[in-house]
Parts: sequence; structure tokens; C-alpha cells
Amino acid sequence: MNLKNHIRVLGIDDSPFTFDEKEVSVVGVVTRLPSYIEGILHFKVTVDGNDATLKLIETLNASRFKPQIRAVLMDGIALGGFNVVDIQKVFESTGVPVVTITRDEPDLSSMKKALREHVTEWESRYELIEKTRVHKVSTSHKDIHVACVGLNDREANTIISKSTVRGCIPEAIRVAHLVASGMKTGESRGKA
Amino acid sequence: MNLKNHIRVLGIDDSPFTFDEKEVSVVGVVTRLPSYIEGILHFKVTVDGNDATLKLIETLNASRFKPQIRAVLMDGIALGGFNVVDIQKVFESTGVPVVTITRDEPDLSSMKKALREHVTEWESRYELIEKTRVHKVSTSHKDIHVACVGLNDREANTIISKSTVRGCIPEAIRVAHLVASGMKTGESRGKA
Repeated sequence: MNLKNHIRVLGIDDSPFTFDEKEVSVVGVVTRLPSYIEGILHFKVTVDGNDATLKLIETLNASRFKPQIRAVLMDGIALGGFNVVDIQKVFESTGVPVVTITRDEPDLSSMKKALREHVTEWESRYELIEKTRVHKVSTSHKDIHVACVGLNDREANTIISKSTVRGCIPEAIRVAHLVASGMKTGESRGKA
Repeated sequence: MNLKNHIRVLGIDDSPFTFDEKEVSVVGVVTRLPSYIEGILHFKVTVDGNDATLKLIETLNASRFKPQIRAVLMDGIALGGFNVVDIQKVFESTGVPVVTITRDEPDLSSMKKALREHVTEWESRYELIEKTRVHKVSTSHKDIHVACVGLNDREANTIISKSTVRGCIPEAIRVAHLVASGMKTGESRGKA
């Protein structure tokens, strides 16, 4: 993979929600590295549902930005609560690599417990999480935990590094969080 | 007015709409010049209504970003069709200067005709437009047409220049357009 400067990534994040809401907005920010925003995508997924994988695939495949997008960057592996994304399937169905980033190290046992308590058919979601290989990346800010399909660890780390301006989270994800939060509540809060 | 680098502006733009819709989303992007996005605001105004002035004042006064915002940058003087913003009143009620920018030179006679045809009580809206003094600014891209209250022409031009990365439109307005358009339609189109 040729990782020139000025490649594009799609950073995505979901909006805040309460558990009495059925759907949650997901915002995608098409960014030319490191931080020039070229487009905004928007789709919805079911809270705690299992349609996030399909919705992300559909959105990517329908987007005129897709040919330029070299990777999807996600804040973790789930959208809308426990709506776990099958990142392998997203890559296979779109040809676009996927990179997930979390600040905290994934804690499989507490995830298993939470899934069991909150959703039926929890086993298949847990399998998606469990099979995802996560590696730790040191940044100048703090360590992050990264999973990737469609590119190797070194390539994923390079994309993250080239797309991060401040802190440890890529601009495309950081802005997706601000948009998802601000559009929902009237004023953005917190961070991705 | 001390126009240091790294001052913040609020760029706003409205979403696309059809005339059978009653409300339109307005997106505000808080940007540290030239282009670092720090927050997203969102409010709604009535299509062809006359609540844009009050909604903008309320949103600004309620925002935790307000103390940092040195100017509101708008794409033209109306939101949601013919919902004309009284920029003098916005400045008086918030203390935040307002700068409007358009690519095309305002055409008062065609605006008058359009207002007459589309809205009742068109005279008061036309007065707001007519009393707004517009000056032309040459950029390396193309000329733009600027109105401002709360700061002088030179200060307005400096803010526009410092907040523009590509083309002739400030990043905060450009991104507000992408967010407003993408959140409404699923994928951003066109430009501010």
C-alpha cells in the first residue's frame, strides 16, 4: 500500500443516545490527511441492533468519495451501543480497509458480561470482538489500541500518525464525534 | 480589536430544504483560525420565517464557546430561505461581531422582487438587506462581497483572510455547509 501524503480517510463516530431511542446517527468525515475536510456522510443504525455492518457497507458503496477513501477509521468496533461492526466483512464487501482505535485497552471479560446482560444473540457479537486482534501503539500523547483489516499494523499506524493533529485521535474521528454530538444535542460535548 | 492568530470564529450555514418543509437546520462550526475545529452548534429556524435573528442570538448567548468567539461568519444574510438575519441586532444582543460573505454581488432589485413574491411582511426584511453596507474584497481566488457589524472593514477582511485555507470562503463556513448538507441528505454536496 502506497501511503502518500494527502490520502483520504473516512472517520466515523456515532451520536450520544439514550436507551429509549431506537436509532442513532452515525457521522462520517472524509478527510484529506491530516485534517482537510472534503465531505460529510450520515446514516443511522439501530441502538443495540445488528445492522451497523450492513449500513456502513451500503453507505461506503454508495458514496462518490469511496474511490478516494484509503481507510475507514472508527472509534472502537461498535456503533449505537452494542451494534458491533464486522470489520472483516466491511473490508471484504467494500475493498476499503478498516482501522479501529480505542483509548482504553479492550477488556474482553467486561465486554462479554455487558453483552450478555444487554442483548440477545450476544454470542455472535462477542465472537466478532474476540476474534479482532488488537495491537498497542505508543503516541506522543498516550497509548492507543488499534485493530485493522485490509492493511498491516505498520500501515495502520502510519495512517493514524499522519491523520492526527493534536492528542492521539485522528482528526477525522475527532471531528465526526463533534458533529455527531453537536447535531444531536445543539452543542458538541466531550471527545471521541 | 486585537486580531492575533488563533482567535476563534463561528461559521454558520443552513441545510438544503424543500419549500414544503417547515424548519431547516443551521449548523455552527467553532474554528480556531485558520481551520482547527473546536465545536459544533446546531439550531433550527423556520423556512421563510422571521425567527433566524432570535435563534442565532439565543444559540450564541447559551453557548459555552461564546467567550472565545470573536466573530460570526455567515454565508449571506439569510437562513432558511428568506429568514433574514438582523446582523446589527445580533451584535447588539450578544456583543459578538457579525460578518456576512457572498460570492455574488448582492442584487437588491432581484432580492426585492423575490421577497415580494414569496413572503408577506416583505418590507421589513428588505429594509434589513437594503441598510446593510456591502464592500468588495479581492482575494487570490475571486472577489467576495462582505458586510460587517461590530468591526471595521479592515478587521473583517483580516479575519476572512486568516480563516480561509483554499478558495475564497472561510473554513468555518465551508465546513458548516458540508455538515448541514451531509447531515440532511446523507452525503454532502456543493459548496457554501
